[in-house]
Amino acid sequence: MRILIGNHIDPSIRERHDMRAWTQRLLWFARPGDLLILCCEPDTAFVNYALAHTGVMREELTVLVTPAGAWGDRLLDPASLTVPAFVEQVRAALGPSGAGAVSEVFALWPSAAVVRLADALGVAGRFPGAAFFGQGGGEIGNSKANFRALAAAAGVPILPGRICRSRVEATEAAGALLECSASGAVVVKQAHNGAGVGNQLLVREPGMAVDHVGARHLHHLAPGPDGIAEYWAERWPWASGNDRWPVVVEEFAPGADAVYSEHYASDDGTRATETGRLLYVGRRLSHQVVPLDGVTDPVRAALLDGGTRLAEAYRAFGYRGHLSADALILPGGAVVFTEVNAQVSGSLHIYQSIAHGIVDVTAGPVRQVVEYHVPPTWSVPSFAAFLSALDELGLAYDPATRTGVIVSMPAIPLAPGEPVQFVFCLAYDPVQGHTAMFDRLDARFAVVPADTYDASQHVATGAVSFSS
Amino acid sequence: MRILIGNHIDPSIRERHDMRAWTQRLLWFARPGDLLILCCEPDTAFVNYALAHTGVMREELTVLVTPAGAWGDRLLDPASLTVPAFVEQVRAALGPSGAGAVSEVFALWPSAAVVRLADALGVAGRFPGAAFFGQGGGEIGNSKANFRALAAAAGVPILPGRICRSRVEATEAAGALLECSASGAVVVKQAHNGAGVGNQLLVREPGMAVDHVGARHLHHLAPGPDGIAEYWAERWPWASGNDRWPVVVEEFAPGADAVYSEHYASDDGTRATETGRLLYVGRRLSHQVVPLDGVTDPVRAALLDGGTRLAEAYRAFGYRGHLSADALILPGGAVVFTEVNAQVSGSLHIYQSIAHGIVDVTAGPVRQVVEYHVPPTWSVPSFAAFLSALDELGLAYDPATRTGVIVSMPAIPLAPGEPVQFVFCLAYDPVQGHTAMFDRLDARFAVVPADTYDASQHVATGAVSFSS
Repeated sequence: MRILIGNHIDPSIRERHDMRAWTQRLLWFARPGDLLILCCEPDTAFVNYALAHTGVMREELTVLVTPAGAWGDRLLDPASLTVPAFVEQVRAALGPSGAGAVSEVFALWPSAAVVRLADALGVAGRFPGAAFFGQGGGEIGNSKANFRALAAAAGVPILPGRICRSRVEATEAAGALLECSASGAVVVKQAHNGAGVGNQLLVREPGMAVDHVGARHLHHLAPGPDGIAEYWAERWPWASGNDRWPVVVEEFAPGADAVYSEHYASDDGTRATETGRLLYVGRRLSHQVVPLDGVTDPVRAALLDGGTRLAEAYRAFGYRGHLSADALILPGGAVVFTEVNAQVSGSLHIYQSIAHGIVDVTAGPVRQVVEYHVPPTWSVPSFAAFLSALDELGLAYDPATRTGVIVSMPAIPLAPGEPVQFVFCLAYDPVQGHTAMFDRLDARFAVVPADTYDASQHVATGAVSFSS
Repeated sequence: MRILIGNHIDPSIRERHDMRAWTQRLLWFARPGDLLILCCEPDTAFVNYALAHTGVMREELTVLVTPAGAWGDRLLDPASLTVPAFVEQVRAALGPSGAGAVSEVFALWPSAAVVRLADALGVAGRFPGAAFFGQGGGEIGNSKANFRALAAAAGVPILPGRICRSRVEATEAAGALLECSASGAVVVKQAHNGAGVGNQLLVREPGMAVDHVGARHLHHLAPGPDGIAEYWAERWPWASGNDRWPVVVEEFAPGADAVYSEHYASDDGTRATETGRLLYVGRRLSHQVVPLDGVTDPVRAALLDGGTRLAEAYRAFGYRGHLSADALILPGGAVVFTEVNAQVSGSLHIYQSIAHGIVDVTAGPVRQVVEYHVPPTWSVPSFAAFLSALDELGLAYDPATRTGVIVSMPAIPLAPGEPVQFVFCLAYDPVQGHTAMFDRLDARFAVVPADTYDASQHVATGAVSFSS
């Protein structure tokens, strides 16, 4: 059996709002006999739905919920994992073979608290990288600032930029980059955030096309050095988490495509797992496509080569597990890397479980999978209503054609009675593309005028998180 | 020629008080033809004194002083290095061969600002690790928190402990460690500090012997969990730099010896450079001895082995240059590592320049070198007065016997007219030891009663720094 832990970045590093829904993507990884640990009771409708697709029986799984900690059941309090009564509960669930029954400990985020639970159970040896993660390695591997130094050392291409530890340094860095940059724009990145939510684009030119960029926040710089100084006076506390983190200031590359290469690092080496493409609309992550298509052979080779070198570099200092190397394909075809997420990304369930597991995309006829976020213009009443609509439209996943929609996570209302937010996968024939299928759903659910929400915010409330 | 930069940790990471004297140890590394960059006009008496020992002529060196930045001439403002007029001054000093004349860029601290200067001069390729340091690698390599994760991943022995990102985590960690620890004591470490100044020892037992420990600060815990909670309520902001850094909480090992193993990491590999011993009195760094003696062969092998593995691990993620792996020899003979300083340490000038260069300790008859801090009980009126006393006592360094005192840095008064603080080396016959020579100096200068200064503070004012 394996112990799967549905956690997220330690709240002491980055405190999220509500990860109940997003962490339940753990269900996609479950295999018969596994023990799943979640911060909340899982959503029964989603569990039944997901397991019906993976073919695992509910009674083949054990699901334990951690005791409520500092965040109730919204977040997994790392300290809850080693509350003695909970450790006893886990131990009891291992059955008569005890620790010997555990083949692997798998966590969505490599927290030291997971190592302490594994230690308490006597199974730390089955959590790859336990020694490293037990001493805060998760933070090291997931800093966007550390990434730039590690990538530079490994000779992996990155964009011009700097790591700043003070407002003075950030002001100087933004000024220097804007002076040299062809685009007249720079990207500011928080060290710890995800899906572009911690990125802000600073542009001089109001007309610049930025809709497709993974930077939730946008700032139009007033002319000259004053504009830069004003920006930092206002935003340094946000960018640095009140001086808590280094801030990345990087040249903005207009017209680039966002792609990624995922890898697995084990004690024996690394292996590439999948490549894909991220698409942003209104600077929000809209959808992602696996496997990656529409790139030339040299681009694909450069992406795999850089990703492999990064995976090897992260492995060399102690990281073990899945990691995602994010990159941009520049208009000229050059590939530059922008960050590494050394954790279970928001892509693993798409390609490992859904695309390769359920859909089997490489079998003939080949298929492709796109995962969409419910767009901010949609109003979906409930999970059940969405499934009914899929049935009515004939868009539910069909194992015979290996096309159609598979919802990836539970649908949680933003507030009681409000519309629900979630992500869903669409399996399709790459020759036909996914636009027609998506448009039929869009026609059904798009009722919110596009100018009634703030592109800088999560839809409406910011309650639902779609990244770790 | 080489460009030697007398800098220190970037003030945006750790803002020091006054590094004018300590950074002038750069003079010990100077070779004919070198260009030295300092934050202040060097002390003429010290320059002449040091060069008389190394045999370099003053006119064989070029010394440039950076423009005064945010800290006047007390600290080297990293931004000063790339002020255009200063870059021009450096370029002019390179002579007709320009960049081609530069064989190496050497900095006391691996700042990104040094890389920017090297870039501006076209010599970044001669600053080992430039790509890594240019993206903030200096901070990564010098964090005592990162150290524990990297050491654990490399399988190098460390003491039980945790990395804490919040007061709640620190409270939990201290409680858990105190529960298991035989000593009933833990050490709290700031991520970025030096010479034990950022360490605080928490002890339950008032009678515990802690005088010899490298922890400037001491706290006697009130009984029970309340004592731990009270400590963190008061000291978490200090320990974390107001949440800026992770905090190390580590089991205290009583009765241990503090030693180190230094290494050099280049593109081709690493090599061990020297081992030594640190001695603390009143929890302040008092003196250090090179080469290391008084250890068994297995202890020496364990120190070198762990140091080498750490040097290789740091090299693997991109660090280049000198580094020091600090360790403790436990009473049973086990060697555990406590931190890595990935910078030019406070030991390099002692062993490389003085012990091996000037004294040539391995030639027959063998010699040893100890470097003392002027103790808090001494009152030395001036550099000249100290040199006169050495002459009178017959303790000035004598090249014929290869014994005697070599002052390692300029002597700066704590305030105008106040006594001076500095460090000085004493070369001696290991059979005879250094105590007799030191005692004669002590008899001459010890006039401050031992209970009139605060062991938690730098002598009197904290103005003089003896670490980077």
